[in-house]
Amino acid sequence: MGDRIYRVNMTTLETRVEDVPPEWAAFGGRALTSTIIAAEVPPGSEPLGKYNKLVFAPGLLTATVAANSGRLSAGFKSPLTGGIKESSAGGTAGQKMERLGIKALIIEGMPEKDTWYSLHVTKDGVTITEDLEYVGVGNYELYRQLGEKLGKKVGVLSIGPAGELRMAAANISVKDPDGNVRSHGRGGGGAVMGSKRIKYITVDDTGGPGVSLADAEKFKQQARIFAKAMLDHPVSGQGLPTYGTNILVNILNEAGGLPTKNFRYGRCDHAEKICGETMHDLIVSRQGHPSHGCHPGCIIKCSQIYPDEEGKYLTSGFEYETIWGLGANGLVEDLDQIARCDQAMDDIGIDSIEGVVIINVAMEAGILSWGDGAEAYRLINEEMRFGTPLGRILGNGAGSVGRTYGVTRVPVVKNQAIPAYDPRSVKGIGITYATSTMGADHTAGYAVATNILRVGGFVDPLQKEGQVDLSRNLQIATAAVDSTGLCIFVAFPALDIPEAFTAIYEMINARFGTNLTAADVVEFGKYVLRTEHDFNVFAGFTSVNDRLPEFFEEELPPHNAVWDFAGAEIDEFWNF
Amino acid sequence: MGDRIYRVNMTTLETRVEDVPPEWAAFGGRALTSTIIAAEVPPGSEPLGKYNKLVFAPGLLTATVAANSGRLSAGFKSPLTGGIKESSAGGTAGQKMERLGIKALIIEGMPEKDTWYSLHVTKDGVTITEDLEYVGVGNYELYRQLGEKLGKKVGVLSIGPAGELRMAAANISVKDPDGNVRSHGRGGGGAVMGSKRIKYITVDDTGGPGVSLADAEKFKQQARIFAKAMLDHPVSGQGLPTYGTNILVNILNEAGGLPTKNFRYGRCDHAEKICGETMHDLIVSRQGHPSHGCHPGCIIKCSQIYPDEEGKYLTSGFEYETIWGLGANGLVEDLDQIARCDQAMDDIGIDSIEGVVIINVAMEAGILSWGDGAEAYRLINEEMRFGTPLGRILGNGAGSVGRTYGVTRVPVVKNQAIPAYDPRSVKGIGITYATSTMGADHTAGYAVATNILRVGGFVDPLQKEGQVDLSRNLQIATAAVDSTGLCIFVAFPALDIPEAFTAIYEMINARFGTNLTAADVVEFGKYVLRTEHDFNVFAGFTSVNDRLPEFFEEELPPHNAVWDFAGAEIDEFWNF
Repeated sequence: MGDRIYRVNMTTLETRVEDVPPEWAAFGGRALTSTIIAAEVPPGSEPLGKYNKLVFAPGLLTATVAANSGRLSAGFKSPLTGGIKESSAGGTAGQKMERLGIKALIIEGMPEKDTWYSLHVTKDGVTITEDLEYVGVGNYELYRQLGEKLGKKVGVLSIGPAGELRMAAANISVKDPDGNVRSHGRGGGGAVMGSKRIKYITVDDTGGPGVSLADAEKFKQQARIFAKAMLDHPVSGQGLPTYGTNILVNILNEAGGLPTKNFRYGRCDHAEKICGETMHDLIVSRQGHPSHGCHPGCIIKCSQIYPDEEGKYLTSGFEYETIWGLGANGLVEDLDQIARCDQAMDDIGIDSIEGVVIINVAMEAGILSWGDGAEAYRLINEEMRFGTPLGRILGNGAGSVGRTYGVTRVPVVKNQAIPAYDPRSVKGIGITYATSTMGADHTAGYAVATNILRVGGFVDPLQKEGQVDLSRNLQIATAAVDSTGLCIFVAFPALDIPEAFTAIYEMINARFGTNLTAADVVEFGKYVLRTEHDFNVFAGFTSVNDRLPEFFEEELPPHNAVWDFAGAEIDEFWNF
Repeated sequence: MGDRIYRVNMTTLETRVEDVPPEWAAFGGRALTSTIIAAEVPPGSEPLGKYNKLVFAPGLLTATVAANSGRLSAGFKSPLTGGIKESSAGGTAGQKMERLGIKALIIEGMPEKDTWYSLHVTKDGVTITEDLEYVGVGNYELYRQLGEKLGKKVGVLSIGPAGELRMAAANISVKDPDGNVRSHGRGGGGAVMGSKRIKYITVDDTGGPGVSLADAEKFKQQARIFAKAMLDHPVSGQGLPTYGTNILVNILNEAGGLPTKNFRYGRCDHAEKICGETMHDLIVSRQGHPSHGCHPGCIIKCSQIYPDEEGKYLTSGFEYETIWGLGANGLVEDLDQIARCDQAMDDIGIDSIEGVVIINVAMEAGILSWGDGAEAYRLINEEMRFGTPLGRILGNGAGSVGRTYGVTRVPVVKNQAIPAYDPRSVKGIGITYATSTMGADHTAGYAVATNILRVGGFVDPLQKEGQVDLSRNLQIATAAVDSTGLCIFVAFPALDIPEAFTAIYEMINARFGTNLTAADVVEFGKYVLRTEHDFNVFAGFTSVNDRLPEFFEEELPPHNAVWDFAGAEIDEFWNF
């Protein structure tokens, strides 16, 4: 029931299994990783230094029969933003950790020796092995070889070459049920894992205690209500299963909020060539799988298996944000080229959102031409993979490219790339970009839902009114959901279908024998945000860090929208 | 008498001559540039964007007969630190500006067109010329060609290729009396000038009003006292004129404060090969000039003309910090190799302090081997000059190299490189590095004077006691001196010889008919520091930015000294 802390010290190469301190007992996922980072990492410390820690924690509902409860949180001080970071992923490692009874895996310290290690997590604890066999190997090949060696069922967390090179855009990859790649994408967790000289972590849940429930009957009943709501809601029940997240290309293009040519325009002339509908038909025509889950128990299945022209696997987990970044913001019109870049980013372990904006800023700097998907692939697959000087500039993020080339049109907040929704014409998400403790992050408070998709009501995306409240409410709710181990897309039904929201905390109550109310959920979310914000303040962040880049003062066609929030208006966000 | 503001708008390509606002009348040099930047540049603005400004201001005594009154201040928001920046230089442009009656030259805006301009400053104002003739040309060749075209007497401010490439370590170069190169070195002013697309600025003082004095007799008398004190003091009268600043190699080595191999040791085994005494004898044996002034009227002449083996000019303005950085901190044992690097940095327009620490961190990252002076030269003269990807990583500063290569042993504060005095064994200078509004900068409050040279008394360099007060007093005094146009080395006599200090403000009184007292000078210095600190706070700096890097917790031989100031102890600095 997640009642043990596994602690690994990479300085002394010692491991321990500890009891859960009482003050951490009610937490899981993001609430727990952020609590541990805030408690144990000095805010001013060097992200790639020995005082930073890397924490993995399943959520409160991870590995239960609740639909979409397969997420694992990773927490650390971010080498990209300099602030606290939580990044969640699917894959199988999280559910296995939970079934081993692991509340959190804490990795601290840093080896003095210039070598590499692997960690092996089992019911008996963690073993550390000096392991140079896979250094330089990409995630796909690593998962294939480890599958042959250890069996396909073993969960794996790993870094690709980007993490080994301690690039600030390096992610932590997770093996999915098919042996493909999911990611703790944002914020440079791969660099932190690389700084601790850990190439990969296996998780074998053989003989683990499994997941127990305080009230199994109530849990089953609430899980049923929850799953039904997921299937009933048009976004989680129809849109995402059919077209994946890439359904958003046409929606954002129509709304004038699809950032195009590095945020110069809000509409893209060739949207039709890269949209979800076109992609769906292409996948079907090539006998691929348009719908696929990132972890066991997923009923949305927004992922897919995207084959090449010959029907062979090309990529999976191919998201709207990646397609937007190269397709609209970088003017690459060929979906296959974008898919190849996506696969390469997963293989070398680069956050694919940061990765596409890296390419956009590289286009802005003249490193490659607008629309040149083949060169984008070469930059990722050769320059970044092998850590050439140019590859390192790129691998350290969009901000790194901008700084190194003296370019100022760099869409980042807290040095993290702004994703696929223009903040001028979708103003609620702009508030989320500005204020999130994570740096620019659409998932931290997805105001696009209410601004554009009309989920959870409607707030006019082009007006300032109501956006700060909207973003605040969503960020509070998201911080709570990120602590459950549920996929963030459960928010769509939870925002519109009252019993879906109720079911989430009632499942937690049924699992742990607690009596959480809706008000408790809100307080829980506020606690998480405050904990993270306090860490960032102690790390040196001020309201100046809660601002969008200067160039968003330019008008964005077709609505000629500008970013017109005064600083004091944005700062109202923290007034709770 | 410095009563006009020349204002240049690079967006509209318009220029204006304005009256001096009354609230700026009492200011010159650093006090004026910092006041103007604080008044006119939004603190949160993009350093390479259209809202940043570049301000040049002669000091209150610049171009008078006062000894060593040839300094010009440049102010801007720094692309290196993100904070306010003042950087002063010798050369001839400052005195010529003053003789034109220019209180400040303010350059604002940014052209939309992708081209280059030159500015021409005369008694009639400023003209802007589209000018592509010298793009890519190094400073030495630029000064030679402009000398042929416009006459050798015309003052020149310029950027080399580094500034054109908007590198954060790019300086603004100034032609010296012999047509060689001096620099507004620190903080990336060259990148700001490059962002405004200005390759060079000529200053022709023909027909200018010259310098007037309210009380010429008193001025002459005080100037005489001042000059005598300069010659009487052992540091400014003997040490610096004979050996230049490189006299410090042996002194710091003896004190155990000469950072060696990227701040691993406080003593360097081969100090003898690179010290000032050795250099002096080498220069003399090659018929060079061991003593040379950076501007007309200098009586210290701490500069030199350093010839190569064949007696041909190799470099000048060859400072202790440059020699330390490559020689001790980078283990390059050959002075000629270091001199070649110095010349190349001047030619391409890279701050030579940042430049040497860039090379040190590159050694730390494995880009070149410790001690490889030939490769250091190639990195500077080829990679940086031509803006290859590696050259851009390097040209953006020591912090850039560290971030891009995932290296954490990076000696910077506020992202500006720490110079040639180890803060663990010269603790007073550590407080200056930590707290200076400029980022790590020994000249901001040269506690080495009192810790090591026993100028202005003595505070034990290895003890914490008294260091904060020492650094505060020196930073206040320095802010005042930086506003006079006097060389900072006048502080040596001013700290030890009471009438030298009195003479400084009495010369100002004699010039302007004012009645400044010693207490006024202190208040003036405090005003400058507070103005700069407030700007930085509004730009997002907190006390977290007033800290040294983590690795200074390591013991430094031979004294096994550590950096042991608590944050609250450092923060006492601002308690005035």
